[in-house]
Amino acid sequence: MREARIYFDANAGVPLTEEARSAVIAALGVCNPSSVHAEGRSARHLVEQARSAVAALAGARPDAVTFTSGATEAAVHALAPVILDGSRESRVGALYVGATEHPCVLAGGRIARGATRTVPVDRSGVADLAALEAMLRDHGAEAGVPLVALMLANNETGVVHPIAEAAAIVKRYGGYLLCDAVQGAGRLHLDIRALGADFLTISAHKIGGPQGAGALVLADEAVRPAPLLSGGGQERRRRAGTENVAAVAGFGVAAQHARHHISEAGRIASLRSRLEAGLRTVAPGALIMGETAERIPNTTLFAVPGIAAETAVIAFDLEGVAVSAGAACSSGKVAESHVLRAMGFDPELARAGIRVSLPFAAGQAEVDEFVGIWGAIHARLRPVRAA
Amino acid sequence: MREARIYFDANAGVPLTEEARSAVIAALGVCNPSSVHAEGRSARHLVEQARSAVAALAGARPDAVTFTSGATEAAVHALAPVILDGSRESRVGALYVGATEHPCVLAGGRIARGATRTVPVDRSGVADLAALEAMLRDHGAEAGVPLVALMLANNETGVVHPIAEAAAIVKRYGGYLLCDAVQGAGRLHLDIRALGADFLTISAHKIGGPQGAGALVLADEAVRPAPLLSGGGQERRRRAGTENVAAVAGFGVAAQHARHHISEAGRIASLRSRLEAGLRTVAPGALIMGETAERIPNTTLFAVPGIAAETAVIAFDLEGVAVSAGAACSSGKVAESHVLRAMGFDPELARAGIRVSLPFAAGQAEVDEFVGIWGAIHARLRPVRAA
Repeated sequence: MREARIYFDANAGVPLTEEARSAVIAALGVCNPSSVHAEGRSARHLVEQARSAVAALAGARPDAVTFTSGATEAAVHALAPVILDGSRESRVGALYVGATEHPCVLAGGRIARGATRTVPVDRSGVADLAALEAMLRDHGAEAGVPLVALMLANNETGVVHPIAEAAAIVKRYGGYLLCDAVQGAGRLHLDIRALGADFLTISAHKIGGPQGAGALVLADEAVRPAPLLSGGGQERRRRAGTENVAAVAGFGVAAQHARHHISEAGRIASLRSRLEAGLRTVAPGALIMGETAERIPNTTLFAVPGIAAETAVIAFDLEGVAVSAGAACSSGKVAESHVLRAMGFDPELARAGIRVSLPFAAGQAEVDEFVGIWGAIHARLRPVRAA
Repeated sequence: MREARIYFDANAGVPLTEEARSAVIAALGVCNPSSVHAEGRSARHLVEQARSAVAALAGARPDAVTFTSGATEAAVHALAPVILDGSRESRVGALYVGATEHPCVLAGGRIARGATRTVPVDRSGVADLAALEAMLRDHGAEAGVPLVALMLANNETGVVHPIAEAAAIVKRYGGYLLCDAVQGAGRLHLDIRALGADFLTISAHKIGGPQGAGALVLADEAVRPAPLLSGGGQERRRRAGTENVAAVAGFGVAAQHARHHISEAGRIASLRSRLEAGLRTVAPGALIMGETAERIPNTTLFAVPGIAAETAVIAFDLEGVAVSAGAACSSGKVAESHVLRAMGFDPELARAGIRVSLPFAAGQAEVDEFVGIWGAIHARLRPVRAA
């Protein structure tokens, strides 16, 4: 095995940056920020500093940011049965959810399963906005307003969805839009107003911050989902529970740096091109999923017919390389990718997708080494055809 | 101001122990534990180690422990509209909630406000079990089963409720019992089976662990509340979302040490007696709330008629002492204590309760110094009576 491992699984978690790590450690063991004494006030200050940084990352005002325990909680929070809009309470009549959403959004949050409809994607993995519009046209307003969930960038393929165009459609039909920006944050320029989404979710540990912090960001503080965790005055009564000050402080620092990381996007995109050219050299029949669509620059989902992802991921691991079979956010079990199925791939190919997701710090030597290792693995695993 | 501050606000948060701090730092930046590669597996190992430690603290099996972002999330999770009991799904018809519960339980979680009834307490702050039984006798089973929520020890007064007796009543009426054990853990011997509760909640940062981790513990894995966060396979599908490995690891270490801290209970109880005697020397008219009830050994809630808690807490802070006015878990604003109101105190006294909660490490010199400081504050603040 190699001495230094290659970590190409950034979409499962971006390695904690040194700066974020220091911020977490500095804030460890601070007091309950709701306490009025000096110890409490200094904890409160750390939370509010982080709020400004996360707001800036999303192009929002600090008051529009609610900290949560992660993006899953933020998504379940946003997928609310009732949207508070100024003095109005709008009941959600149906949820329209993209077919390739992350499981935490696909599960529908607090919306009844029977009230959830799936918005299809095309073969390249991009949401079919004509289909969305047709669905919203048929929406029965008597049950309530439509809520739409569409992710900024897919975690498996990296495919970027046309959020601003989708938002324009959603607004035309009086609906609300949740955009899961977990994989877009720190990789694409983020501006909640330009996107047109009402709610946006971000995860700290996907931008170089610690696990255990996420955010729900509002475009307009007057428009917000009904709270998920009630029973305390924290987060302007939007989210009860003592704040995880250390994780939140690390999130803030990571958010500051994530804005700088976006400037690395060009370099990372070149590395990915080099990687994909390498994959094609090893196996000319390799499929690169979503290749024709716009993608975040660090992600490649590829498959070689006849090679199961699970087998390949284990082989990579033994060679000292961390990659994933589709999403890692599940039980550690590799099943059929719902993303690839939604894109029209057959069940066998939907179990063959190997996800390579480059961290900010990836370099050319690592990419070349990765391709070399893949060459050796491929030579061992490739299906033997009758001569 | 004193150079070293006195922190007597342990019920708002027990200072992070050195051992837990080291465990958090060691686990910071580990990988997503759902990933199948080596990095993921070592993160998984940390989570499972912590699970065993937290289970041992609660007298439960490791599989019965679900990690959450904190006790608030655990409470909202447990206060579910549906209880899964073996192959049966029981709809909750009504929630019977103790009048002095923590706000995160009092808010009722996912149970409709109209289906929530309050179980009164007596003047000493102890739940009125005869009233509970009468309420359960009148429970209309057609709407569903009864769910009862009763805390082990109150966060403001320290009063311990008779959970085992309550559980016997709840079982007689076919109900389920949630016991918020946040303030009892690490202070009382904890055994979910001896308590008879179906669900128990614990918070890491109330036992010397970090903020950002809590647990829902089941008496029987086959009996569990419907999930709150869905959409990922984590925690045996009971709680979706990437685990906060660092906080969970720190929680585990704190749980191990909390069992040792229980042996300090006698020493802490003596310190509290000394403190309360001191309070009476300063102001013979001081009221000690819940004094006649069984209490956890570290907590004193006292009031002097005519002195508002808010004023006293600020005065203490300026003298370098951290205490609370009732619960700190709110917005930092001191309002009327719902706990004292439920115990029958008038609105003025319900704003006068000053909570002193000793950490494990409190010593006699600190207690004596505290009493001295209180003497000076009291002399300044005491109401001037006509001669």
